[in-house]
Amino acid sequence: MDLIESLQWRYATKKMSGKQVPQDKIDYILEAIRLSPSSSGLQPYEIIVVTNEELKEKIKPIAFGQSQITDASHLLIFAAWDNYTEERINAVFKRSNAERGLPDSATDDYRKRLLGMVLANTPEQNFAHTAKQSAIALGISLVAAADQEVDATPMEGYNAAQLDELLGLAEKGLKSTAIVALGYRDEDNDWLAKLKKVRTPKELLYTHVN
Amino acid sequence: MDLIESLQWRYATKKMSGKQVPQDKIDYILEAIRLSPSSSGLQPYEIIVVTNEELKEKIKPIAFGQSQITDASHLLIFAAWDNYTEERINAVFKRSNAERGLPDSATDDYRKRLLGMVLANTPEQNFAHTAKQSAIALGISLVAAADQEVDATPMEGYNAAQLDELLGLAEKGLKSTAIVALGYRDEDNDWLAKLKKVRTPKELLYTHVN
Repeated sequence: MDLIESLQWRYATKKMSGKQVPQDKIDYILEAIRLSPSSSGLQPYEIIVVTNEELKEKIKPIAFGQSQITDASHLLIFAAWDNYTEERINAVFKRSNAERGLPDSATDDYRKRLLGMVLANTPEQNFAHTAKQSAIALGISLVAAADQEVDATPMEGYNAAQLDELLGLAEKGLKSTAIVALGYRDEDNDWLAKLKKVRTPKELLYTHVN
Repeated sequence: MDLIESLQWRYATKKMSGKQVPQDKIDYILEAIRLSPSSSGLQPYEIIVVTNEELKEKIKPIAFGQSQITDASHLLIFAAWDNYTEERINAVFKRSNAERGLPDSATDDYRKRLLGMVLANTPEQNFAHTAKQSAIALGISLVAAADQEVDATPMEGYNAAQLDELLGLAEKGLKSTAIVALGYRDEDNDWLAKLKKVRTPKELLYTHVN
């Protein structure tokens, strides 16, 4: 499938079959996430990959009992940095410079300007920004899953405070932004599988200034 | 190129050549954006597609003189809804039900629950959410561009208030969230083209709970 066909094939699967996704397909999806672009290349998020059945059972009521949580093969929990800090940003630049064989001084001007901007923001503003970066990666994860003919359900319908508590995210300076359930559609029992995909007509979505 | 190769090939191009991107490649990228998933399928954003040279010249100083603005073939300006409103949400459900041949009553419970949630939020909270949806589409646009071997630079470095004013976005209830410059890399004159792509190691990005 090409990318357009993948996007047409995928849908937010409401009923999954319980079938496992092979490890090579999971690895492919995780690598696509890892290669996703982000503002200043900070990748200000982590992903918790859950296959543990007990943990899925604990997450299910937090996600209002939605069956994909336990019928999925893997859950990807996207968790964005709760704030930008000097320590976190410096660590990214240090790692990047080391890999590129550059001295830290090579990026000092840019790094200091960036720190000046983000440290002036409130934690809420910075979390809105990190969450947006995690959404870029989430979008790419859905394309990668479809490319591998793996179904995926992006889910925001859960109690974030309870999920963050269960996973101990606050201690890591993280807040969950979405769950992506990976698995396979149970087409006969999925009401959404039978409905036409509807998208905004291009006339309403695009304004051309030529 | 497969998706992983596309992600490795792409980078945030800093110097573009001025060469035009063929219309069929632009159409492909725009269709990928249009098919992008979003929360409740609302697609709460619009995209302004700019090829007009005069307008690019006006945007350039607003984007701090960055050369991609005028060396790009096309600019995609992502602009998210500044708030959720009953009118906007009802219009999406009405269109979707009409296309699916369903009566509006089929989605009334879901629509009312959704309205109850989003209308209780502040405009700032809702804009953070619509901006996140636009980030999903932005991520997919970058994959689509790479798939077509078109270079793309996602840009947040601009004065949003000035750009929104120039484009009259407030009157449309929109706020810009990012610019994506589409064009072709001028490899010899792009300092970033020569640097290794660096990403967070998977050991730091992923936590597995098996």
